[in-house]
Amino acid sequence: MNASNLAQLCIQQRVPPAALLAALLARFGQQFSTALVVREQHGRDESAFSVPPPAAVVFAHSTRDVADAVKLAAQYTIPVIAFGVGSSLEGHLLAVQGGISIDVSRMNEVLSINAEDLTVTVQCGVTRKQLNEAVKSTGLFFPIDPGADATLGGMSATRASGTNAVRYGTMRENVLALEVVTAQGEIIRTGTRAKKSSAGYDLTRLLVGSEGTLGIITEVTVKLYPLPEAVMAATCSFASLADAVNTTILIIQLGVPIARCELLDANTIRMVNQHSRLSLREGAMLLMEFHGSPASVREQVEIVQALAADQQGEAFEWANTPEERTRLWTARHNAYFAGIQSRPGCKAITTDTCVPISQLAEALLDSVLEAEQSGLTYFLVGHVGDGNFHMGYLIDPDSASERASAEQLNSQLVQRALDLGGTCSGEHGVGLHKMDFLLAEAGAGAIAMMRAIKQALDPDNILNPGKIFAIE
Amino acid sequence: MNASNLAQLCIQQRVPPAALLAALLARFGQQFSTALVVREQHGRDESAFSVPPPAAVVFAHSTRDVADAVKLAAQYTIPVIAFGVGSSLEGHLLAVQGGISIDVSRMNEVLSINAEDLTVTVQCGVTRKQLNEAVKSTGLFFPIDPGADATLGGMSATRASGTNAVRYGTMRENVLALEVVTAQGEIIRTGTRAKKSSAGYDLTRLLVGSEGTLGIITEVTVKLYPLPEAVMAATCSFASLADAVNTTILIIQLGVPIARCELLDANTIRMVNQHSRLSLREGAMLLMEFHGSPASVREQVEIVQALAADQQGEAFEWANTPEERTRLWTARHNAYFAGIQSRPGCKAITTDTCVPISQLAEALLDSVLEAEQSGLTYFLVGHVGDGNFHMGYLIDPDSASERASAEQLNSQLVQRALDLGGTCSGEHGVGLHKMDFLLAEAGAGAIAMMRAIKQALDPDNILNPGKIFAIE
Repeated sequence: MNASNLAQLCIQQRVPPAALLAALLARFGQQFSTALVVREQHGRDESAFSVPPPAAVVFAHSTRDVADAVKLAAQYTIPVIAFGVGSSLEGHLLAVQGGISIDVSRMNEVLSINAEDLTVTVQCGVTRKQLNEAVKSTGLFFPIDPGADATLGGMSATRASGTNAVRYGTMRENVLALEVVTAQGEIIRTGTRAKKSSAGYDLTRLLVGSEGTLGIITEVTVKLYPLPEAVMAATCSFASLADAVNTTILIIQLGVPIARCELLDANTIRMVNQHSRLSLREGAMLLMEFHGSPASVREQVEIVQALAADQQGEAFEWANTPEERTRLWTARHNAYFAGIQSRPGCKAITTDTCVPISQLAEALLDSVLEAEQSGLTYFLVGHVGDGNFHMGYLIDPDSASERASAEQLNSQLVQRALDLGGTCSGEHGVGLHKMDFLLAEAGAGAIAMMRAIKQALDPDNILNPGKIFAIE
Repeated sequence: MNASNLAQLCIQQRVPPAALLAALLARFGQQFSTALVVREQHGRDESAFSVPPPAAVVFAHSTRDVADAVKLAAQYTIPVIAFGVGSSLEGHLLAVQGGISIDVSRMNEVLSINAEDLTVTVQCGVTRKQLNEAVKSTGLFFPIDPGADATLGGMSATRASGTNAVRYGTMRENVLALEVVTAQGEIIRTGTRAKKSSAGYDLTRLLVGSEGTLGIITEVTVKLYPLPEAVMAATCSFASLADAVNTTILIIQLGVPIARCELLDANTIRMVNQHSRLSLREGAMLLMEFHGSPASVREQVEIVQALAADQQGEAFEWANTPEERTRLWTARHNAYFAGIQSRPGCKAITTDTCVPISQLAEALLDSVLEAEQSGLTYFLVGHVGDGNFHMGYLIDPDSASERASAEQLNSQLVQRALDLGGTCSGEHGVGLHKMDFLLAEAGAGAIAMMRAIKQALDPDNILNPGKIFAIE
């Protein structure tokens, strides 16, 4: 997606007629706003794109609110876009064709904690931190952690994952059931609280990762896990990125059930140290966490220490207390902001490829080499245990040449990942940014199947239009 | 699904015109047959249904063969049904609207073993035992084990699981990528070998479990796992079914990573002893298997022994050698046939509900009570660690009253499972048997969404028609 494509997308503006705005005001009163400041707040996310804001915002308090807003918009074939906390990195929330933003952040009730089944059902606006607060007393936790304190609805819609996915899976594996508002404003349920099912098409997994284009997710039922008896976290520095990556590959190939296995390069450590007032050693580093019984954690640590030592890893530095662990992971989560703040006024163009684990060294090291040669500033973090890493190219948003350089690097990186059997997006989604990459990855036949599904479920293209699929 | 519905489904026969049969013969020669014995062999499965056989059989040797057969059939809007080994329990393979059976059992090549990535890609006709033979030397294995030596294509199409799912997940979690022939005879690919992805709609998971109604799966890429360092298997008898079930519930709630946790009732043990010449104690029994490092297995065993003892479990009896383990699990896998053979000439009507683990006792024990009161002979086996169990009501297929009794029991059992937050099918699929149950479970809105997808991808309804959805 380059600037001219974006402009082209925005040409297809659909302006809500006064009758629709009046009907929304009548139905929603104080929960409805056309104030510019509110619209602008709902017209941006963490991506590097800038487009006009939505025409209005509805603050939904209930599934019924969402359904009614969609029904009204559908009467006039006006777009609707659900908004949680605005943490998308790929422009998912941007009203490229105009329309109504449906803010679901007030739908933040934890509906039922079924500790005895290791499940919980929440409204879509509940955030992952809020969820973990709510279930803390049960001795259970929800592991999926994309960094941002995103909503469960947004995490479902983008098939999010993050640092714990290497052990606990992604939203794909952890969502059991959904309540969804369709393009017709109907309320449906998919899945049940049973752990597995062969009952009909897997609508749950079709909707997870559909980025708001097939329905608006209003309730989410997810799996919970017993809090591990023992948790240990450590950092280990390496002489080179290659050594850190090779250690990771061996950990995964041996089947060590490591809970987190994150890579940061020297550059990023420097940014993180500055941002979070830490003094981590400035070299390639793995941040790791181990979960299990005390004996199992000990076993995992011994194996990983031996593997790291073979790759010239330094001694482990342990984060022994929950507070130290929190500090470490907060620093990791803030790497994105540390990167952004290292160059005031910049925006990040973020990559998100994921490759089969044996291809990780090639995918990552060649991309680093190209970034170095480009002269652009960048950061590098990775959920490397999954074969997933992010480079953030820090560009001056007003510099066409820097944007072009970054997009060129991204294209090369994606093409390399696809050649190695990987995917253009491990966890951020397609949004406005990876439409061409998706076509290259999936092929015209699979894209035609996706489009046929979209057309069947949303014939007027009102659900978050302009995302996932390139303009024909 | 009762007998009169089945007759109704079969009214909609679509007879292939002579021109299609001639074109298939010209294209496939020796790979094409209209011989009655061949058709009959492809017109039955392990279900209790009996319908006329397909009009012809194509033996596909390649994806191109499948695509060409589908293209020819599509020209005449004649149904196509893929056939692997015929182990469906729900009538998936039956040509209720006539048409062409595409036998894919000769597409049995293991295409690429990527041991360093823990993945393997196979043609759809490869069976799970063949797959495990092929990867044995790599130190990896494929855990999904539905009992029957089913094909990977069939297992994908029904979202199969089985004894190891409690630890390793189902086909839903273990299929990474597919090659699929669409209703138009086009060949598409879904997914990649990357462990996770947020790139577009999850077509892989939509097709997994679609029972041949959205496409014919021709290649499957699945995850592999390192063979566990230590494996221990044991049986434990209980004074009552309730004790065995309650032990299971506690094992799962504590998060013990048990690899297999199977229940058999006294009745079934008797049948199994007779069929497999064993002398297992004739009482409610858990068959368990533990995988991990020696220390981890020891830990798991200690916890489970303590839990079982609290529920009046007998001492564990260990299967210490691989041969003893194989004997035990073969006996378990043969429980279905042991049941069938216990009443010569009978057919089994099999139930397949799966409920949240805390509801398992209620779901299972009440169903057993009803079965006892009915006077029908039955067997009871369960992947109880997943909340999934099967009752097999053994009926004289010519006795309308026995069939009606069995279906009545099944209906009550399903309704109970749905009331408890569960699903009508844990792993066998809907097929011809659970259409009404699926509607009750998913609701009209979700069924409408499934139908819209089916209509969009297969507008002429040639892909395994008459399955999943009840007649309108």
